Amino acid sequence: MIDKKISMNNTPSALAMVPFVSVENMMKLVHHIGLETVLLDLTNRIEADFKRWPEFDKTPRVASHSKEGVIELMPTSDGEVYGFKYVNGHPKNTRDGLQTVTAFGLLADVNNGYPVLLSEMTILTALRTAAASAMAARHLAPKGAVTMAMIGNGAQSEFQTLAMKTVVGIETVRLFDIDSAATEKCARNLSGHGIKVVECATPEAAMEGAQIITTCTADKQCATILTDNMVGSGVHINAIGGDCPGKTELHHDILLRSEIFVEYPPQTRVEGEIQQLDPDHQVTELWQVITGDRPGRTDPRQITLFDSVGFAIEDFSALCYVREKIVGTDYFQDLDMLADPDDPRDLFGMLQRSGRLD
Amino acid sequence: MIDKKISMNNTPSALAMVPFVSVENMMKLVHHIGLETVLLDLTNRIEADFKRWPEFDKTPRVASHSKEGVIELMPTSDGEVYGFKYVNGHPKNTRDGLQTVTAFGLLADVNNGYPVLLSEMTILTALRTAAASAMAARHLAPKGAVTMAMIGNGAQSEFQTLAMKTVVGIETVRLFDIDSAATEKCARNLSGHGIKVVECATPEAAMEGAQIITTCTADKQCATILTDNMVGSGVHINAIGGDCPGKTELHHDILLRSEIFVEYPPQTRVEGEIQQLDPDHQVTELWQVITGDRPGRTDPRQITLFDSVGFAIEDFSALCYVREKIVGTDYFQDLDMLADPDDPRDLFGMLQRSGRLD
Repeated sequence: MIDKKISMNNTPSALAMVPFVSVENMMKLVHHIGLETVLLDLTNRIEADFKRWPEFDKTPRVASHSKEGVIELMPTSDGEVYGFKYVNGHPKNTRDGLQTVTAFGLLADVNNGYPVLLSEMTILTALRTAAASAMAARHLAPKGAVTMAMIGNGAQSEFQTLAMKTVVGIETVRLFDIDSAATEKCARNLSGHGIKVVECATPEAAMEGAQIITTCTADKQCATILTDNMVGSGVHINAIGGDCPGKTELHHDILLRSEIFVEYPPQTRVEGEIQQLDPDHQVTELWQVITGDRPGRTDPRQITLFDSVGFAIEDFSALCYVREKIVGTDYFQDLDMLADPDDPRDLFGMLQRSGRLD
Repeated sequence: MIDKKISMNNTPSALAMVPFVSVENMMKLVHHIGLETVLLDLTNRIEADFKRWPEFDKTPRVASHSKEGVIELMPTSDGEVYGFKYVNGHPKNTRDGLQTVTAFGLLADVNNGYPVLLSEMTILTALRTAAASAMAARHLAPKGAVTMAMIGNGAQSEFQTLAMKTVVGIETVRLFDIDSAATEKCARNLSGHGIKVVECATPEAAMEGAQIITTCTADKQCATILTDNMVGSGVHINAIGGDCPGKTELHHDILLRSEIFVEYPPQTRVEGEIQQLDPDHQVTELWQVITGDRPGRTDPRQITLFDSVGFAIEDFSALCYVREKIVGTDYFQDLDMLADPDDPRDLFGMLQRSGRLD
């Protein structure tokens, strides 16, 4: 009743307020918890949600493509909480000093439809993408993997590396990028994080001795970042960059030699590396490996491939984590985003009263 | 370059900021412009966008249904600007003192994917829904219509009435609701707005002499708000409340006697009154009436029916209007919603630096 009384005075009630986590607050939250702890927590959180995969409403993301890029909405719900992410992908943005990917997300209460969290997700997407990769590698990489090749040293590269270090136990990362400035930036950022960094002049050099190969490049076209002869047996490939129609990173023949694991087939068939294959080419859904319904890696000489495109449930997991972690902190602000008249049928009256009080 | 320099100090640059229109600021903006002017402006704006209908990317909204209601995302794009709305519909919410419908929306630049406006849309949806109804009535209602029956006197009713007054010239509104308190509220709110208000005890009484019949009820089920014998010839029916699968307001037989006009058939076939009809029952797309490609009302004795479910382009029009109108005002705040590192590939470096500065 107090809320309602406040609302009479045209100050929004608590019901009308949505906690918002800005970029600045997201960074503070990550430092408060600790970056590697966040990566590990997110890995476990995503894994827990993949384990209850059938409980979620799933749909391929809703994409609006243009010449320069794509804008996507990625909704899901577990029947209690609804979440969605807005995310763009514009590879040429970096030329203008802009991010390739920016994102924000929202959680809402399924029972009444009221939003309960709005959050920046540019940083959170980088964290959850790295955590999803680490989760896949935890189940698929060769036992005792200690070296990762990181092909593409852009905005995702340090997050990928630290997640693989924290979750899988990677001790050495071997970096390659066609732009050596990107490699230098990545190496500089990773110094002091307890991982050995080797800058490499060629992709072949980067892959020497690596048990995990992560590709994360951003060109919006079919590119062959890895050719068939570059990839030996007994590796796990973590392919992040192929994530929209017409955008792939791996040579077709590598796919034919690999055991392929995906998030959500209806989406990956359109966006992932496997858009190069027949629509009925056999793939394994990662969640079934996690529940134990399907085998992961069955042979040390196998090539496993996580054809990652990013799925709404990963964002849902990350947003739920943030929602939980901001409780009792100052790392959010309340946004007056929802109209909440005293009498819910009296939206007009609320508007009228606000005019009189001006 | 100044922006970038500021960003070095971990203050977000202008690029990272998204103008946000809160509920309070939306109310101020409406009063600043004037409610009836806003309704007329929105009507004209929506009409202008309907006139260039083929330029828009169109998709049925993406709905997540639950036992209690629905949460929907409604995206569209004209190739330059992308927009979407988040909206819920939870008919039982009013029992708990909550809104049936809350909403917010976003516009983004198609060329780089960066959001350019975040806005409350609970109030804005009420305004644009009324404006869309008025636009349809402008083309379909009998000439010289001066009386409207308003069946359902909830949150939409006053907005509908004032839009019909301002745009179509309605002089009298005849109110009916199964809850007489709602009717009293509506009558009270409309007093002093230059329209004659008649409170009616039955829907039949409300429809006496009305040339326009607006139905706007919120039960999430097939209800028969209007039976066949209640509707005479020569009227325009503006059916707002049937807007999700299993939710209709009109008796099947009324539909068979009516010339039916819709926004976007793939969505209306699933959600509108016409879900009661064969999937190939002839309907007219409203935008084609506006461009002159198809006839609207052709006979004064005809029953025309606008089977309104709400479409993404109407929200797009409304958001573009708000974006334009807040320029030079204080009716928005800047949200730090987008990460914007100095080097776009250096998201990790931005995060690291923010930790050091803490």
